[in-house]
Amino acid sequence: MAQNIYDDPHFFARYSRLPRSVEGLGGAPEWPALRALLPDVTGRRVVDLGCGFGWFCRWAASHGAASVVGIDLSGNMLDRARADTDNPSISYEQQDLDALDVSGAAFDVAYSSLALHYLGNLGQLFATVHRALVPGGAFVFSVEHPVFTAPSAPGFVAGTAGRSVWPLDRYLDEGPRVTDWLAPGVVKHHRTIATYVSLLFQAGFKMAALDEWGPTEDQIAEVPEWAIERERPPFLLVAAHHA
Amino acid sequence: MAQNIYDDPHFFARYSRLPRSVEGLGGAPEWPALRALLPDVTGRRVVDLGCGFGWFCRWAASHGAASVVGIDLSGNMLDRARADTDNPSISYEQQDLDALDVSGAAFDVAYSSLALHYLGNLGQLFATVHRALVPGGAFVFSVEHPVFTAPSAPGFVAGTAGRSVWPLDRYLDEGPRVTDWLAPGVVKHHRTIATYVSLLFQAGFKMAALDEWGPTEDQIAEVPEWAIERERPPFLLVAAHHA
Repeated sequence: MAQNIYDDPHFFARYSRLPRSVEGLGGAPEWPALRALLPDVTGRRVVDLGCGFGWFCRWAASHGAASVVGIDLSGNMLDRARADTDNPSISYEQQDLDALDVSGAAFDVAYSSLALHYLGNLGQLFATVHRALVPGGAFVFSVEHPVFTAPSAPGFVAGTAGRSVWPLDRYLDEGPRVTDWLAPGVVKHHRTIATYVSLLFQAGFKMAALDEWGPTEDQIAEVPEWAIERERPPFLLVAAHHA
Repeated sequence: MAQNIYDDPHFFARYSRLPRSVEGLGGAPEWPALRALLPDVTGRRVVDLGCGFGWFCRWAASHGAASVVGIDLSGNMLDRARADTDNPSISYEQQDLDALDVSGAAFDVAYSSLALHYLGNLGQLFATVHRALVPGGAFVFSVEHPVFTAPSAPGFVAGTAGRSVWPLDRYLDEGPRVTDWLAPGVVKHHRTIATYVSLLFQAGFKMAALDEWGPTEDQIAEVPEWAIERERPPFLLVAAHHA
């Protein structure tokens, strides 16, 4: 099963103070780009894989989704999601995405934000999502970008050209990466872009869009320290269709 | 128009001594992976964009292609391609791919090896290739991988973890990169993977496969100095279908 780091009290306390935890989707700079990949959710049955505090579930419901199911492994996160949610069209379920169990053809839209890089068996998850979607259904997700997850020492260093450089290595060496992000010993699973795309094809999806997200000029004008994120994209955004 | 560095005598002399120039496809370690993306060429009309010395053109003809057109900007390369070719089903044309002029629905398979990163206007080239292919036609190409073309200082350096690292920067800053590869002042055009994929979609293609190529274990056993290429992929291989 996936590591349940979000139920580590120290990690959870620190995660809860991130802008995206406090401000929701508005605190996630990649949200406008991810939203642009989503179909209109009006009247749709939506599932959020790794729903966290439920910000996206509430957004989807408030934008007309017929029903929204938020799934997460972390009891801590679901407790707060339920406490913050007052909409009968939203329900939450505690499940490990590495062993996801959902009904067939139950959803029109599957969404996942920055969760799938924690999973050990992504091919199985993609197959489950494909079965859970109706024909023509949309699968839109973000993950940490493979150039972000790959390195032995993931942090900018001074380069010879006088710029900060990202010390890329081990890109083609897929598998677990243990990092100290908010807490020591967080386990992520590094996969190449080619593997994400190949696993989607193998599960029966068609590719619809791929975005390597970095902050826009407007965002950098507002938060200048984000400029460095353009040296290497932090997030990969993908849209696929049930074919 | 694209820079015609292959007609620079110094560059051409050095390029002519590379294994892939001397040995042909067998000297190109990514060829088995690129070949795996190709459809059966038997009876097909094939075009090779940036055909160089014509190795692929001769391979396609010897594997049953009905006709093969090799296109290149370099007169030097086409002179040698013609001298090395003795097959009436193969013809060569000198054209700048940045202003490619071909008939509509004239080909079943379009192929390009390590040429498209020299082009300034890839969207236009993709649109031209789409028009030149019949419905269901295949477009298979390789380019230098975006993590390879991005950096200000593209060369491995010692990393803090005691490994060689690739100093990635400027990944999201697309545009020309001037490098000293075989000769000073070689101009390549850096584009992200997302841009390659988006331009294919915009031209009307469907994605069929994406490979971030690195040497296999068997290849490294044979040529140990290739191991470092697994730290960051040197080539991006793409297969798309005319939709």
